[in-house]
Amino acid sequence: MNYQAIISKIYNKLVSIEDKGNPAAYIPELAKVDIDNFGIYLSNINGSGAGEGDFDKPFSIQSISKVFSLCIAYGLLGEKMWSRVGVEPSGTAFNSLLQLENDNGIPRNPFLNSGAMVVCDILISHYENPKKDMLNAIREMTENYNLEYSPHIVESEKSAGFRNIALCNYIKSYGNIHNEPEVVLDLYFNLCSITLSCKALSKAFLFLANNGTTLSSKHQILSNSQCKRINAIMQTCGFYDESGEFTFKVGLPGKSGVGGGIIAVHPNNYTIAVWSPKLNLKGNSFKGMKFLEEFTTETKFSIF
Amino acid sequence: MNYQAIISKIYNKLVSIEDKGNPAAYIPELAKVDIDNFGIYLSNINGSGAGEGDFDKPFSIQSISKVFSLCIAYGLLGEKMWSRVGVEPSGTAFNSLLQLENDNGIPRNPFLNSGAMVVCDILISHYENPKKDMLNAIREMTENYNLEYSPHIVESEKSAGFRNIALCNYIKSYGNIHNEPEVVLDLYFNLCSITLSCKALSKAFLFLANNGTTLSSKHQILSNSQCKRINAIMQTCGFYDESGEFTFKVGLPGKSGVGGGIIAVHPNNYTIAVWSPKLNLKGNSFKGMKFLEEFTTETKFSIF
Amino acid sequence: MNYQAIISKIYNKLVSIEDKGNPAAYIPELAKVDIDNFGIYLSNINGSGAGEGDFDKPFSIQSISKVFSLCIAYGLLGEKMWSRVGVEPSGTAFNSLLQLENDNGIPRNPFLNSGAMVVCDILISHYENPKKDMLNAIREMTENYNLEYSPHIVESEKSAGFRNIALCNYIKSYGNIHNEPEVVLDLYFNLCSITLSCKALSKAFLFLANNGTTLSSKHQILSNSQCKRINAIMQTCGFYDESGEFTFKVGLPGKSGVGGGIIAVHPNNYTIAVWSPKLNLKGNSFKGMKFLEEFTTETKFSIF
Amino acid sequence: MNYQAIISKIYNKLVSIEDKGNPAAYIPELAKVDIDNFGIYLSNINGSGAGEGDFDKPFSIQSISKVFSLCIAYGLLGEKMWSRVGVEPSGTAFNSLLQLENDNGIPRNPFLNSGAMVVCDILISHYENPKKDMLNAIREMTENYNLEYSPHIVESEKSAGFRNIALCNYIKSYGNIHNEPEVVLDLYFNLCSITLSCKALSKAFLFLANNGTTLSSKHQILSNSQCKRINAIMQTCGFYDESGEFTFKVGLPGKSGVGGGIIAVHPNNYTIAVWSPKLNLKGNSFKGMKFLEEFTTETKFSIF
Repeated sequence: MNYQAIISKIYNKLVSIEDKGNPAAYIPELAKVDIDNFGIYLSNINGSGAGEGDFDKPFSIQSISKVFSLCIAYGLLGEKMWSRVGVEPSGTAFNSLLQLENDNGIPRNPFLNSGAMVVCDILISHYENPKKDMLNAIREMTENYNLEYSPHIVESEKSAGFRNIALCNYIKSYGNIHNEPEVVLDLYFNLCSITLSCKALSKAFLFLANNGTTLSSKHQILSNSQCKRINAIMQTCGFYDESGEFTFKVGLPGKSGVGGGIIAVHPNNYTIAVWSPKLNLKGNSFKGMKFLEEFTTETKFSIF
Repeated sequence: MNYQAIISKIYNKLVSIEDKGNPAAYIPELAKVDIDNFGIYLSNINGSGAGEGDFDKPFSIQSISKVFSLCIAYGLLGEKMWSRVGVEPSGTAFNSLLQLENDNGIPRNPFLNSGAMVVCDILISHYENPKKDMLNAIREMTENYNLEYSPHIVESEKSAGFRNIALCNYIKSYGNIHNEPEVVLDLYFNLCSITLSCKALSKAFLFLANNGTTLSSKHQILSNSQCKRINAIMQTCGFYDESGEFTFKVGLPGKSGVGGGIIAVHPNNYTIAVWSPKLNLKGNSFKGMKFLEEFTTETKFSIF
Repeated sequence: MNYQAIISKIYNKLVSIEDKGNPAAYIPELAKVDIDNFGIYLSNINGSGAGEGDFDKPFSIQSISKVFSLCIAYGLLGEKMWSRVGVEPSGTAFNSLLQLENDNGIPRNPFLNSGAMVVCDILISHYENPKKDMLNAIREMTENYNLEYSPHIVESEKSAGFRNIALCNYIKSYGNIHNEPEVVLDLYFNLCSITLSCKALSKAFLFLANNGTTLSSKHQILSNSQCKRINAIMQTCGFYDESGEFTFKVGLPGKSGVGGGIIAVHPNNYTIAVWSPKLNLKGNSFKGMKFLEEFTTETKFSIF
Repeated sequence: MNYQAIISKIYNKLVSIEDKGNPAAYIPELAKVDIDNFGIYLSNINGSGAGEGDFDKPFSIQSISKVFSLCIAYGLLGEKMWSRVGVEPSGTAFNSLLQLENDNGIPRNPFLNSGAMVVCDILISHYENPKKDMLNAIREMTENYNLEYSPHIVESEKSAGFRNIALCNYIKSYGNIHNEPEVVLDLYFNLCSITLSCKALSKAFLFLANNGTTLSSKHQILSNSQCKRINAIMQTCGFYDESGEFTFKVGLPGKSGVGGGIIAVHPNNYTIAVWSPKLNLKGNSFKGMKFLEEFTTETKFSIF
């Protein structure tokens, strides 16, 4: 299939449409980003690639980083980690506390903010220097050795992070956070602050399209079965309260972030990253969702 | 792959394990079924098949029939049907009323009882003789011309159906049921009463593994895109409040029924039906879930 | 205190103010009532009375009848009735199903529709001719021997009663309705259909201001302690999700109905009935609430 | 009425009954208190008093202090404070976050922890030295000039206060806390730490039985109408999710604390304080509730 041609065609169709969403306003630093950015990059497991628009500009990947921390924690703990966080879609917004009250502090899945905090807590209990060790682990996993946290984004998130502070202390009150909430939140915000371009992001996720093994260094991050399971969680839980809609329209496992990025994985085929900062009402990139829907429609090729 | 050998191996491993669940007790007729029944049948799109155990015994497919009615309604109405029922997993039990109150009578997805009632309502508005016309449509779709409703199961369900009566009247109070609740419930209970064997069930679903077209008569039930979308809804919503878990462990789109049946679809490959009457706490066949988990693990072949 | 003068003063102040609410639209028969009706009547336990406006015109008392059925059931069963219905305010709307799902079919209090249905069910299990026997009991209790059900209001409510049908079947599904839902709903709708004037209504409630004993016939409906407890339930639960507000602003036990009537009781002093059909957003008479707030402010005399 | 005789009689009946509750375990300092403590004191507005048992031993009044801070804030702001906190019973536990999510950060009433935090926030915005100024205000209001905060109880609560930290940050995320969460929580925990004996507590609340004016110094804390309204809120919201039950069984406005204390007010008559540390499942003193139920039954004298 000529992915470059299809990507260019859809890019040209969508680049100038009116884009109804709004960028994330609650994180001051994100509100400053130019809303006209629009980039796409596809990385094929055969080594080829194809892109359009602002695919080389780094952006804040935000919640997409939850996939990295989940993969690392899953690799370390294996199946026993699922006693502390579930794998069910939540039926509620990404930062909701409602669900926790019904489930005694066990987050429904690791892509809710609450679930990602529990994952951070697991990592903190495991590593000596959690922030540094996690950075190294993500660098290795993504084969991207320049990757850094963005201190000004961390500060910006902390200044507006009352609901996340609430969430973390709330889980702690149920005993499902073992470390100090401040320490957990610090790692959490740092992981959210990572910036990557569409190109780097699509390459970083290639191991999930390649049965858990990185493409060039042949480093096995996850077993074949674990890799399938991470893809499965992305399928049912990757888009907050719009996961069903994304599965329905796009038909690929994926994960979005409030920075306007989306990554999607076609197992044994490719990964594709899209970036456009305006978000729809459910908090997912408006143009990104549209692009991917047209992409799998045009290619007639999804996992279903 | 030698599916027959793998099926036999797992069947022999599981047939005698203690099976912790309980059969559906709230429908008197279902409570009478022999709990030792255990059957599996796989139908390949290449025309071959493989089975073990009680794969030729008919059982009450119950909620699995929701897929038939959804496909027929979707074929008739196309995308406009989604204004009356959503495609998101619910995060609540299959017969919960909570969600409806929050969403003004729009069921979250067509596999909740509430959602299936709205689908029935759509069909009643469309057909002249809904019960008869639906039976014909399902016969054609499944290439199974002997298929009948089971009046004694219908009676049994009606006698215990207070919550379903509540659900249907509740949606009606929001205006999202257009016909009389009694008429909607009658079609709903009749569709649930259909009985099929594992073999017949796996054959009946082949069109969903075959891009929407029946295998022998080449009858196109759904377009390619519609077929993918039905599979997608089964993936995120097919197992009530355990859909995430099924996706995580099995990795195939599927649908369960309280009669203890499960159907799963591997697009472009096969369909597989399993039956064992004891249900786990979430209302899905205990042994059926276990079988399918082992099956995709053993074959190392899921959609992810 | 010159109650007549105070009532006239407030009546004249409020009669012409703009009255922001809307009459109950969901019961066709109620939607026909002239929205300009406004009446007040106070009955003193010393035998005197005072009124203004349309205090002699009968109106549909609707949920106010829930107090009659509760008193009769309480008189018959005593404290054991509280195993089937609670005495806590609900924090939800009068016809909500949410609460029932959390509390396994035990309504939070007898003034919710669900709770009143359980009370009806108790009465049906007790009486031979529930509808006739209840009419006689209410006639005696209110010393009003002409009281009748209003068949056309019953029909009107049944035609729009999908949510009430849902509620009753839902409680039945939990086993907390013992009789047939149709029979329970028939009694329920008949009791709601009773029409009384403000004058008749205030007289009918005098036994609750008189320690449980009717004023002229000295018939003891409830013991002293039971009478206090009914007043207590009216205080915390009498105004749906606005009970706190009514207690805060008016400071008397009371009960409202969607017909626009309100009854309030000042134990050992008086009862006062107000009627004005337009309802506020919480379903209580807009002008009625205002009148009573001004009345206890002006008299500087509430139970607190 | 001979209150002393009635109090002694009920005290003797209850002092040795088995007392099924448990003391508050989540605040380490409270868990140390001798569970056999049992005291009662009634203060009459005629100046007389009557007591039994440990009525002179100070205990941690905890949530009872919420009445003091509410009265002071209400005196300062008047009716405009109700835009930031409601007056409705909640239907949920005292430390629930569920309700806040539905109501956009407006606590349902000022006796929920969330509501009391908003009251603290109001006081902090008003006073220069909130902790010192509040101590002085409470001293004056209660005519108790030795009253102090208890630093070791404050520390004990902070060490276990994750849910309260969560609550405060959560309301802040909705913008309904204007000051820093740490500052609000510090005042909140200090107010909870006040210790008073039953005798001192009953005297401290006399102004609420006396139309808002202190008994000896004739200091007007609240207007007559405001005083009635505070009593009304105690009636509908004073006992968390058991407010209806307390109103039903006792029939007086009141407020409980997890230290095992209860204060009740009979307007124009008396106040009565009871203390016994073991709590029932809803978090209210087991023996305290029982004592007051028997007390109003024996005296045949409640507000209803």
